[in-house]
Amino acid sequence: MDLHGDELTDAVVTSFDGSLEPRTKEVMSALVRHLHAFAREVDLTEDEYFLAIDFLTRTGQISDDKRQEFVLLADTLGLSMLTVGLGSPDAEGATESTVFGPFFVEGSPEVPNGADLANGAPGQPCLVSGRVLTTKGEPIAGATVETWQADEDGFYDVQKDGLTGPQNRGHLKTDADGNYSFWAVKPVAYPIPVDGPVGEMLRAGGRGWMRPAHIHFMVTAPGYHRLITHVFEAADPYLQEDAVFGVKDSLVTEFTEHPDGHYSVSYDLVLAEETP
Amino acid sequence: MDLHGDELTDAVVTSFDGSLEPRTKEVMSALVRHLHAFAREVDLTEDEYFLAIDFLTRTGQISDDKRQEFVLLADTLGLSMLTVGLGSPDAEGATESTVFGPFFVEGSPEVPNGADLANGAPGQPCLVSGRVLTTKGEPIAGATVETWQADEDGFYDVQKDGLTGPQNRGHLKTDADGNYSFWAVKPVAYPIPVDGPVGEMLRAGGRGWMRPAHIHFMVTAPGYHRLITHVFEAADPYLQEDAVFGVKDSLVTEFTEHPDGHYSVSYDLVLAEETP
Repeated sequence: MDLHGDELTDAVVTSFDGSLEPRTKEVMSALVRHLHAFAREVDLTEDEYFLAIDFLTRTGQISDDKRQEFVLLADTLGLSMLTVGLGSPDAEGATESTVFGPFFVEGSPEVPNGADLANGAPGQPCLVSGRVLTTKGEPIAGATVETWQADEDGFYDVQKDGLTGPQNRGHLKTDADGNYSFWAVKPVAYPIPVDGPVGEMLRAGGRGWMRPAHIHFMVTAPGYHRLITHVFEAADPYLQEDAVFGVKDSLVTEFTEHPDGHYSVSYDLVLAEETP
Repeated sequence: MDLHGDELTDAVVTSFDGSLEPRTKEVMSALVRHLHAFAREVDLTEDEYFLAIDFLTRTGQISDDKRQEFVLLADTLGLSMLTVGLGSPDAEGATESTVFGPFFVEGSPEVPNGADLANGAPGQPCLVSGRVLTTKGEPIAGATVETWQADEDGFYDVQKDGLTGPQNRGHLKTDADGNYSFWAVKPVAYPIPVDGPVGEMLRAGGRGWMRPAHIHFMVTAPGYHRLITHVFEAADPYLQEDAVFGVKDSLVTEFTEHPDGHYSVSYDLVLAEETP
């Protein structure tokens, strides 16, 4: 008894010695050591402890099947990008990954190649196309390309009330030459949701809450690593100050404006092979 | 752009440079560094990241005005006791602090000294008494003594359905000689709630979930540090394996059994003076 200082930390670490899986012990041991080191370093006060309890509780309670505030918290603390980096296959030439984000929804509609996903969302029409390729430049036929993005007002469909169906969201299969294409609206920079606990943190931290314009992709094909990424627009003014630290140079590309007012962007998505 | 490794961590830390309060920057900077160091040390996988997101979300969602699963999580990870230790006044002779726990409820009934707080809760009657004192041994009159505890079945009132009023919960004022006394039931060792995310963690960690028998106290008086503590029973078999690491030798005392079957315990609560 009477655990003080390092003895307390050691007792908590040791309490996980009987973990059912070795990995549980490894992760929890490190978590406890870093959590305690943090609290000691800042000499955490009881008021701050209760503020954190309240903050985390509300972060869970504002989350539902359409909003994930803990993902947003992990995004804005850089943990999502850090995890993406740790998990990325070390495959020369593969498209880089970025954050998953809080607005992915399971069960999007499957559509044919070339379909219009905008479904009435406000914005300039934008044709998005490219190929899904191996790192050797060979096409991957039948790959599943899942996409989602915000509209001209900066809102994803799941943030809007009264919609009768998804907007700018769907998935399709690449054709025999690895081609994918769909219509959506031209994405714009938008604020992440700041009406919850994460917004409180960003305001207290004097931080911005804009994300540069982007299109989300999740691409899967048997035998290849799942790719979760964005394509960013080169002209966006917020590229240097993404609230979730997600921009990578290789993911930034030009959107072309056409005489009739529509836009187009072409981007090839290169998957890393799974290694046995 | 293209933030990798330490550059990413530095960018997130730097993003808090404009914090409205210096303390926000200090705490968030340390939090980000320790969070990232943890993820790097264990090479956190995306599956583990999403498992953590789900775990934290459910921890918030199971919490309400009667159950605080994040406090339980902090308790079982030793963070609560660590914070208690960091915040304890360094006052020779003052009663030691321990965890607040997840079962405190605002607005308990005020009762006269000597009242019976059991209110029908199952258990052996137990007279709890003592004095509230300064570190010089002088009585503190008019101190507020708030108490709460579980019954013989191991349940706090807020865990039970259908009660018409609080059980083993209330607050009173010390008399002119600093005396407090009330009747409750003899506390027993009990399991912390393991039907939520914290229970999953404890089972995965091969850990126990018992707490040794104790009575909660929160004592306040103008000019003194607020004392949050327990009194533990010396005969309890779980003193060495408290699931929340809360036992301190100085808080363990004998409960006396009387011929008519009731118990009594006397414990003085010594407050540290606030230093200007």
